[in-house]
Amino acid sequence: MHANNIVSHLPGVFLKSVADCKPDDNWVHSLGIPVCASHHHQLLEDPEIEAVVIATPSDTHVEMIIAAAQAGKQIFCEKPVAFEAEEVATAITAVDEAGVQLQVGFNRRFDPDFLAVKAAVVAGRIGTPQIIRITNRDPLRPDLDFIPKSGGLFMDFSIHDFDSVRFLSGTEVEEVFAMGTVLIDPEIGKLGDIDTALITLRLTDGALCIIDLSRETHYGYDQQVEVFGSGGSISARNTTPTNTILCAAQGVYTDKPHYSFVERYEAAFVAELRSFFAGVREGTPPSVTGEDALAAVRIAQAAQQSREKNRPVKVIS
Amino acid sequence: MHANNIVSHLPGVFLKSVADCKPDDNWVHSLGIPVCASHHHQLLEDPEIEAVVIATPSDTHVEMIIAAAQAGKQIFCEKPVAFEAEEVATAITAVDEAGVQLQVGFNRRFDPDFLAVKAAVVAGRIGTPQIIRITNRDPLRPDLDFIPKSGGLFMDFSIHDFDSVRFLSGTEVEEVFAMGTVLIDPEIGKLGDIDTALITLRLTDGALCIIDLSRETHYGYDQQVEVFGSGGSISARNTTPTNTILCAAQGVYTDKPHYSFVERYEAAFVAELRSFFAGVREGTPPSVTGEDALAAVRIAQAAQQSREKNRPVKVIS
Amino acid sequence: MHANNIVSHLPGVFLKSVADCKPDDNWVHSLGIPVCASHHHQLLEDPEIEAVVIATPSDTHVEMIIAAAQAGKQIFCEKPVAFEAEEVATAITAVDEAGVQLQVGFNRRFDPDFLAVKAAVVAGRIGTPQIIRITNRDPLRPDLDFIPKSGGLFMDFSIHDFDSVRFLSGTEVEEVFAMGTVLIDPEIGKLGDIDTALITLRLTDGALCIIDLSRETHYGYDQQVEVFGSGGSISARNTTPTNTILCAAQGVYTDKPHYSFVERYEAAFVAELRSFFAGVREGTPPSVTGEDALAAVRIAQAAQQSREKNRPVKVIS
Amino acid sequence: MHANNIVSHLPGVFLKSVADCKPDDNWVHSLGIPVCASHHHQLLEDPEIEAVVIATPSDTHVEMIIAAAQAGKQIFCEKPVAFEAEEVATAITAVDEAGVQLQVGFNRRFDPDFLAVKAAVVAGRIGTPQIIRITNRDPLRPDLDFIPKSGGLFMDFSIHDFDSVRFLSGTEVEEVFAMGTVLIDPEIGKLGDIDTALITLRLTDGALCIIDLSRETHYGYDQQVEVFGSGGSISARNTTPTNTILCAAQGVYTDKPHYSFVERYEAAFVAELRSFFAGVREGTPPSVTGEDALAAVRIAQAAQQSREKNRPVKVIS
Repeated sequence: MHANNIVSHLPGVFLKSVADCKPDDNWVHSLGIPVCASHHHQLLEDPEIEAVVIATPSDTHVEMIIAAAQAGKQIFCEKPVAFEAEEVATAITAVDEAGVQLQVGFNRRFDPDFLAVKAAVVAGRIGTPQIIRITNRDPLRPDLDFIPKSGGLFMDFSIHDFDSVRFLSGTEVEEVFAMGTVLIDPEIGKLGDIDTALITLRLTDGALCIIDLSRETHYGYDQQVEVFGSGGSISARNTTPTNTILCAAQGVYTDKPHYSFVERYEAAFVAELRSFFAGVREGTPPSVTGEDALAAVRIAQAAQQSREKNRPVKVIS
Repeated sequence: MHANNIVSHLPGVFLKSVADCKPDDNWVHSLGIPVCASHHHQLLEDPEIEAVVIATPSDTHVEMIIAAAQAGKQIFCEKPVAFEAEEVATAITAVDEAGVQLQVGFNRRFDPDFLAVKAAVVAGRIGTPQIIRITNRDPLRPDLDFIPKSGGLFMDFSIHDFDSVRFLSGTEVEEVFAMGTVLIDPEIGKLGDIDTALITLRLTDGALCIIDLSRETHYGYDQQVEVFGSGGSISARNTTPTNTILCAAQGVYTDKPHYSFVERYEAAFVAELRSFFAGVREGTPPSVTGEDALAAVRIAQAAQQSREKNRPVKVIS
Repeated sequence: MHANNIVSHLPGVFLKSVADCKPDDNWVHSLGIPVCASHHHQLLEDPEIEAVVIATPSDTHVEMIIAAAQAGKQIFCEKPVAFEAEEVATAITAVDEAGVQLQVGFNRRFDPDFLAVKAAVVAGRIGTPQIIRITNRDPLRPDLDFIPKSGGLFMDFSIHDFDSVRFLSGTEVEEVFAMGTVLIDPEIGKLGDIDTALITLRLTDGALCIIDLSRETHYGYDQQVEVFGSGGSISARNTTPTNTILCAAQGVYTDKPHYSFVERYEAAFVAELRSFFAGVREGTPPSVTGEDALAAVRIAQAAQQSREKNRPVKVIS
Repeated sequence: MHANNIVSHLPGVFLKSVADCKPDDNWVHSLGIPVCASHHHQLLEDPEIEAVVIATPSDTHVEMIIAAAQAGKQIFCEKPVAFEAEEVATAITAVDEAGVQLQVGFNRRFDPDFLAVKAAVVAGRIGTPQIIRITNRDPLRPDLDFIPKSGGLFMDFSIHDFDSVRFLSGTEVEEVFAMGTVLIDPEIGKLGDIDTALITLRLTDGALCIIDLSRETHYGYDQQVEVFGSGGSISARNTTPTNTILCAAQGVYTDKPHYSFVERYEAAFVAELRSFFAGVREGTPPSVTGEDALAAVRIAQAAQQSREKNRPVKVIS
């Protein structure tokens, strides 16, 4: 998807090579990309390549960030950077020492609706934030194969929400209480994960947040956010493929939400890369930093601990 | 309001008397009610009076229920019946011993939108409930005078939501975690209460619930509920005075939600009394019982305790 | 319906008698109405009766208005007063000579949504009106028996819209062009009527209006109106029994519009009678006059003529 | 815009040259387009160029189509092809004789919402179409300079709607009645044009259509369409930049419609060119033909005549 987006939407960026452990030459060349590599070292060794986009399994991110940093490449890396705060810190250190930049793939920060919510908050249109509500629900449970390497519901899925809370509020998270359970598929439970959860957060400025999570809606990708404050409320509702409405004897139907993150955050995926490459070109700092990734991972860790111990847990800052 | 509703909307019910410690003869007679009493004993002693509606301050409810029960009257009582589970139990005992009926004023159970949500759940249109979300926000903070005698945010305000969770899910609450704070008015905090809260609940069947509470929206009475399940989601959105939409250079405006509980639950207030008097006439059991009141108070107590101790608390059943 | 509304919602009005050519004693008495009459003369001869509500077939209205006026009764009459402008004028004359008042049942003038649209127009929130759009569609074609005595689609059904145009714009209609056809049921055509039509109107101040009509939606009573002006647009959308939304794998469903005029204009039917009786009591002029009925009939006649001749027709004023 | 779209969104198409009577070399080269021409003959003489996109003033279209056809180029041409049916026919003849293809820029046919409406109609979800309603309103009146060369409101602006009626219904237009006026700017009237209109159409299958037109909304580009039929109704509502909702003491605000055709039909502008170039590559017939352009111009001519003579006018087929 990132390769497609660069080729189709970022005319000023030249995508020289894609590396994959199972490289698909035909597909790579069909996009007009000259080099199809089977190992990421081939990219890191190419002096023509200025920047890399890492979209590999999460448990390989830190190693690749360090290698890319040492090779002097500018780095865009998908979320989560790692499952442990210490590992994220290691990656940040490597990046800092190499003097390169790292942008993390918290794509919601580039979504037009999330940006409009943020803008309303910053403009003071809802006063001081008091309650933030986030709904994050996937259309279909993931393959069971994915569960063990996912990092768990909080680290893999809700990591976006932890970043959204920080982004929308402009504040840090102080304390977390998480209630989680297995309601969709007992197999997920046998693998040590959960599929349904509520996470309550207290921010350092006193505001409260609630995140509700589900791995399976059947009706599409449910992505809603509200910031309620002393002067009102601003919400981003679900987006839909079309804006049509059908009235018939059986009922009144509108479109279901976009089916998955691919359609829902289509514009955001392009915008985050546009921002990254603009930063590379102009030498400006990235809009989503390694520190942002670290903060989100620390919240996810506290949520995990809270659920296991069934008590609120302070977030390390 | 109840007197008005009986006179205007329940033609089969004859309202003989209204008792108030500061009786307003003119108003009572303008409604065509023959007797304006200054003490509730006058009603209880009147053999013509079959049933009473108690809408006094919450801390007088139990005493009045007991007196009415002993006088052999059928009883409708506003919520909360009491602030302590023991007191509610005492009222229930008195009612049972007298062989009369007690209906409690959980009016949301009679709201067309809540009923439609319940009907969808019962009909299996959303599968098995997994997450229930309730937003309950008042338009304007109450007078500070009211706070000390209110029973607190959970007992006074969220008591409706505790009943809604039980009503919509058909299940009991097992455990509660409440995070509360003072964000609207520090004076509320000085009086020992809070004005903003999140309450997370775990039901006995494993489903999770989240209630968000605020004492002040400025934009009206925010009353939303969603039941999300294994097959989809059913929500009741806010209702509005009109269904108009204004498009202008400054923006697109629709109506604000109804301003307060009076307008929002107008039909429900009539329907609960219609149900009560129908039960009295036909000798059928009330649709909202003393046991329902007791269950809600026990959840409120657990929520209160949870907030004070900052840990999850089991609900006594 | 009117009898029920008076009994249930207008506590200050005493409904003494209902006259019907096939009187239903049980029903009348169940409403607490003392006298069940078999001829309207019984009401007109009763000196205790101050005011009458005429809800008989349209072709009897004028005769009854004249009789009631001569008996000195205040009169509320359903629409249309008559199918010919001359007859309406005769009724007006009788009313004027008798010194009584006549209010006509254009109930939309009392609907909260239409009133909000009117208020926005009067307040200048949309500037000067330029285009008025009305959708008026019935859920189910009428019985074929009704067609011959209905007065036709324009006189029976669209008469409300002609009044709405005048009410919302505060202006008179100058010219009409009507395009009508039979698309729902050929039997309606055999009876000389149509079931589907578009009516274009030019107002005296230059604004344009369009009314679209259908006798059958299957999805409910479709009642929408928009006033578009030099500063924006105000619309009344359909109202629905509840405000719920169901998201499921099959789609997203909301409520259908209210099924028929009974539910859609429930509040308006009460409000028009409340206004009528308030006028009777206080001696103030009615809010919808015989002249309003006359104006609407003249537009309906012009529309009828336009359709027959397939050319625009000026409205007599 | 077309040049930008080709460069940014159609990776398989190589845009070799842009011709403009006032060529802007810098802009052309910034898009990576090699040749910046000052006359369209330069393109027609270039044997490497297979296809041309004509987006010049409407009164130059026919001449350019003929020249391009004679040069053997595949042709995409903006609407309207010409202001007279005879001229459009001449262009079609030239295209046919040259054996090239002509696609016309009726972009709404490629809009996701219009396509969903069409799909619902074709799938029979609303039964047989009976009433089509189109609202077409511009945000801001055009420059007065544009009026004389625009072809008039019907030819320039409503030409899209005439095509939409044919596209959505799959039927031809038989008769037209147009009521038009000047309500926005008297200067438009002095130039012989109108700025506000209602157009009523009768289709050959008996269905009726209504188009309402305005040159100025102030609140954005108002583009709504409904097809109502024997089984229900399908509508495309306005699209908005975001899906946010702001609740505040002053009211509830949602986004205004997209401001202009550029944003509203962004995806459609890309899709129509994608379709054109796919047709060129694969030798398949264009999805919007010269005959479609001819049909739309004939309806516009009938509408123009109807307004001038104030009577319905048959459309030549």
